[in-house]
Amino acid sequence: MYICAPMAQKKSKPSIHTVLTPQLLDLYEIKDSIVVIIDVFRATSTMATALYNGARKIIPVDSPELCIEMGKQTGGVTAGERDGKIIPGLSYGNSPSEYPRSFIENKILVITTTNGTKLLHMALKQGAKDIITGSFPNFSAVANYLKEQGVPVILACSGWKNRFNIEDTLFAGAIIEALKDDFTIHCDSSLMANQLYCQHKDDLAQYIQTTTHWHRLAAYGLEQDMLYCISIDSAPSIPIYKEGALVNGL
Amino acid sequence: MYICAPMAQKKSKPSIHTVLTPQLLDLYEIKDSIVVIIDVFRATSTMATALYNGARKIIPVDSPELCIEMGKQTGGVTAGERDGKIIPGLSYGNSPSEYPRSFIENKILVITTTNGTKLLHMALKQGAKDIITGSFPNFSAVANYLKEQGVPVILACSGWKNRFNIEDTLFAGAIIEALKDDFTIHCDSSLMANQLYCQHKDDLAQYIQTTTHWHRLAAYGLEQDMLYCISIDSAPSIPIYKEGALVNGL
Repeated sequence: MYICAPMAQKKSKPSIHTVLTPQLLDLYEIKDSIVVIIDVFRATSTMATALYNGARKIIPVDSPELCIEMGKQTGGVTAGERDGKIIPGLSYGNSPSEYPRSFIENKILVITTTNGTKLLHMALKQGAKDIITGSFPNFSAVANYLKEQGVPVILACSGWKNRFNIEDTLFAGAIIEALKDDFTIHCDSSLMANQLYCQHKDDLAQYIQTTTHWHRLAAYGLEQDMLYCISIDSAPSIPIYKEGALVNGL
Repeated sequence: MYICAPMAQKKSKPSIHTVLTPQLLDLYEIKDSIVVIIDVFRATSTMATALYNGARKIIPVDSPELCIEMGKQTGGVTAGERDGKIIPGLSYGNSPSEYPRSFIENKILVITTTNGTKLLHMALKQGAKDIITGSFPNFSAVANYLKEQGVPVILACSGWKNRFNIEDTLFAGAIIEALKDDFTIHCDSSLMANQLYCQHKDDLAQYIQTTTHWHRLAAYGLEQDMLYCISIDSAPSIPIYKEGALVNGL
């Protein structure tokens, strides 16, 4: 009896979707996807930086109370801001500049932020296959990781209090630009994000200053922080969520 | 006694916000605003056209069952589609081409659609000050009306099953372009929408063919319908919601 060898299956490309704000996450099936949490100003930029600078792990928590509690339990550095000020009871803020190697190496960072850490917990509850965080400082590391994994990707923008923001969408558009030959795109939010990025990739520093978040943080004197947050590949790392914490997968 | 005349108060400009999908509507305070319901493909384009062609009024309902019921009660023409086909029990579809003056003049149209009529009812429940519908065929009439009213504006995009879509965002961006000297803009979604429109205002017919909704409706042979839906000022009218129905305020 002659048995045919199975036809070589042409592997179909995985999908990529962009979720413009946390309030839209439940519209997407994320169980088979890597969810990339994006909070350019400044949670995920700070996370990339702390891990790049040797932090042992980062525990993202969704409330100041839990941040204090986890800080005690782990002996970690507690961090979180509201309205540009360190939250009472915590020790540090959300600025990447607060976490140089000389300070954060081998330490545990416990952090809560207005948008990014909340979205990460939403993705967790909704059963994401894997969760990583993305930002311009670890752009290429994230893009390469997603290409290597070859599974569906959800680019999840943290926005601002559930509303759309431009800076997270720009980062999603940058990732799409890097992945678009290897993934399929069937959503208008990804088309728009990619187009916005392509239009502004050469004037990112100027364009970003037109956004509402720039104005909000500039009022606290955080312009240098924000310019760092759009500096590409300044902190190569892959923050991967494993057993309750982000660790560097690079 | 000399009494000073009161200082001339510099009237502050009203705000304009863009709500990218119905699922984000509850993030906005709409009680003092005119909400513009936008469903370019094709509900609000069809509504503008039917009123321009002399329909007495349009009753937008959020289910096929209610559409049948209201059709019976009012003697109106019932309309609604799902997946490109007329919904069983209703008589007509969602295409603006179905409502020429020779057919719709002096008639009542009772219509249900996938996204637009549902959003209108959400805005109603959330207590919008006033509700109108907008589309490219009645673009200038809507823009002029909003300028004249001089109150806060919410540009509410119907999207696709609560997800973002490009065509409604483009229309929001076009309205912002017309209003931006007379209104204040403090949201990234309005900045993005306006920018998207400015980038594509001269190649709208080509650009629109890259969107997911174009592909969806083109599969039903509706290309001409969609090209009509992006034709500016082809059906000047102001569909204003009053006492359960849209009437022409022009």
